[in-house]
Amino acid sequence: MSAGRITLLTDFGASDGYVAAMKGVLAREAPGVRIDDAAHDVPAGDVRAGSWALAAYWSIYPEGTVHLVVIDPGVGTERRAIAVEAAGRLLVGPDNGVLTPALSVEGSRGVVLPWDADRAPPSGHTFHGRDLFAPAAARLASGAPLESLGPELAEPVLLEEPEPVAENGWLVGEVVHVDRFGNLITNLPGSALRGAAEVVVADRPVRVGRSYGEAAPGTLLALVNSFGRVEIGRTGASAAEGLGRGRGASVRIEGRPGEE
Amino acid sequence: MSAGRITLLTDFGASDGYVAAMKGVLAREAPGVRIDDAAHDVPAGDVRAGSWALAAYWSIYPEGTVHLVVIDPGVGTERRAIAVEAAGRLLVGPDNGVLTPALSVEGSRGVVLPWDADRAPPSGHTFHGRDLFAPAAARLASGAPLESLGPELAEPVLLEEPEPVAENGWLVGEVVHVDRFGNLITNLPGSALRGAAEVVVADRPVRVGRSYGEAAPGTLLALVNSFGRVEIGRTGASAAEGLGRGRGASVRIEGRPGEE
Amino acid sequence: MSAGRITLLTDFGASDGYVAAMKGVLAREAPGVRIDDAAHDVPAGDVRAGSWALAAYWSIYPEGTVHLVVIDPGVGTERRAIAVEAAGRLLVGPDNGVLTPALSVEGSRGVVLPWDADRAPPSGHTFHGRDLFAPAAARLASGAPLESLGPELAEPVLLEEPEPVAENGWLVGEVVHVDRFGNLITNLPGSALRGAAEVVVADRPVRVGRSYGEAAPGTLLALVNSFGRVEIGRTGASAAEGLGRGRGASVRIEGRPGEE
Repeated sequence: MSAGRITLLTDFGASDGYVAAMKGVLAREAPGVRIDDAAHDVPAGDVRAGSWALAAYWSIYPEGTVHLVVIDPGVGTERRAIAVEAAGRLLVGPDNGVLTPALSVEGSRGVVLPWDADRAPPSGHTFHGRDLFAPAAARLASGAPLESLGPELAEPVLLEEPEPVAENGWLVGEVVHVDRFGNLITNLPGSALRGAAEVVVADRPVRVGRSYGEAAPGTLLALVNSFGRVEIGRTGASAAEGLGRGRGASVRIEGRPGEE
Repeated sequence: MSAGRITLLTDFGASDGYVAAMKGVLAREAPGVRIDDAAHDVPAGDVRAGSWALAAYWSIYPEGTVHLVVIDPGVGTERRAIAVEAAGRLLVGPDNGVLTPALSVEGSRGVVLPWDADRAPPSGHTFHGRDLFAPAAARLASGAPLESLGPELAEPVLLEEPEPVAENGWLVGEVVHVDRFGNLITNLPGSALRGAAEVVVADRPVRVGRSYGEAAPGTLLALVNSFGRVEIGRTGASAAEGLGRGRGASVRIEGRPGEE
Repeated sequence: MSAGRITLLTDFGASDGYVAAMKGVLAREAPGVRIDDAAHDVPAGDVRAGSWALAAYWSIYPEGTVHLVVIDPGVGTERRAIAVEAAGRLLVGPDNGVLTPALSVEGSRGVVLPWDADRAPPSGHTFHGRDLFAPAAARLASGAPLESLGPELAEPVLLEEPEPVAENGWLVGEVVHVDRFGNLITNLPGSALRGAAEVVVADRPVRVGRSYGEAAPGTLLALVNSFGRVEIGRTGASAAEGLGRGRGASVRIEGRPGEE
């Protein structure tokens, strides 16, 4: 029995038995495997937020880890179910872009998981997490080769991230994720803060800093976050609430971004 | 040492150390056991919601699994503490109906866990999860026979689910649970949707569908959910919020329910 | 390979990948270790609430357990990172008082974790949970001696709890924590309820009881909680909401507190 490891990322919340139903399948079909909860409060149906959460951890886990990701607003439609191998890690989830962080790695490859209507419970069609994705993850964690799960995947759905734009001496990006602390994570690379003369978010100037703890409570700060992105936060408070802005808000950097 | 598995379902939330206090007892008294979090955000004291969550997973786990369930608004009163065996799984929790999904299985049997006042910490009387239920679960997971935990249980408390009623060509049921997505789960069997001419929830007609993903955002749909029940949802949104209704709301199906 | 156990307490919530990033480090650097989630919804940056949560479980776990605690509003500043041994358990976290329950145990000792700037990712400086604390916890769980992690810790930051005060025949304390159920936990020892003639919270008299389940819904009760403190709750409801009070609210006990 492999001592594999499966992580779970969902938008199922923690008030229902849906996550446990998936874990029960894993316990039954891959009894020796370790199960790590990644997160279950991804906003309902928010594929982009799920993809962002996945990006934070999937490649930190050791090779051989299986990441099960079920943020799946299209469950029951024609959207494909897929399994992917990237950088030695395995991922299982819907083909709606949520697996983009792994699919965009060079050399990644995938298969399409067949949905055998005969395998479906007579009851209904809305819980692929339990009936399709978890069994596939259990098989991978137990050592089944990727190819054995289905035919090769072509042209997976990829989320596109907006590219920053240079305008009149400004580098203009936008907020792509708001985290639990109300920090606004942007599409601007951390290097853009080097040599920055001014950072403006929602028409408000923001000081450039190194860490939230260094400033007085309530101060807005732009810094390079631990994922290499420009992030706007507010010491001891939520920048998202303070500014009344979220995903899509404009963030502009003046100066000679990227130069010392 | 048994390599047993214990799942935990509580209404303790994730901001206090209460869940971890129970896990600490399990780690101490059954060190080899695996611990799976089922869910901890069941609404405070909501036995019916806890029972519904449990129904989703308890029988999926392999035989021998111990399900520890602490939704216990009557803690410290005369309500009994019980352990149950049903379909080869073991369950531990208060005798307030939360274990109904297992207790209603044919052949289930239970014991009453004695509350030894001497075993109670001098401090207080309000944390049976830590001081009574977790130790019992640890014993069961370590292989102790059910009978060794206490005297036989007679007449456990069972939650009654309202029965659907036939009225003038309509089958009338009600919402028995609202899940994290705002889906309204009813007491109507999925078979009732076959041949349905019309479904009405809170005086609004609802289209019959197969999955939420197939309809335009905001569409109300009635479908057979993955637990075999009629469920009312709204594509990409919460039906509960959209309709302003929740548990107890009337759901009517016209036609010849159950016939093709 | 040690079969150690690491618990995680954070304020990272369950919508991002931050907790999983830490778990990935543990899986990579201490593959055989068991990981228990303690709680991840501690209010953001609330060191006092984190310390209170930790107090509920850290000493219940068996000796050798490593408790990883990341409630760290000062991350990136000069605040120290520490590892502590107390009563045979090991703890890792920021030196901001959150580890007070262990640090105040007689015989506890600690070391300062060096932050090697070379080890920092080029990206940024804001995720010591992933880059500093988790690797230290993995080393301890794998059997590294405490001393091997850094120089001895002197004068750790300790949270002070306000002391109850005797005034004109009253013992006056205050609310130090509000839990998930809206129960108000005070700094008054449980013994103070013995012989109490009256308990007053926010100018309202509160009945003395033994458990919430014994009273009618909505009743305010003062009781000795399972941690040996006087706690004010409301049967089937939130005392914090009912009274409109929280941390810092005054709680007065009249009579001859502590005497039968």
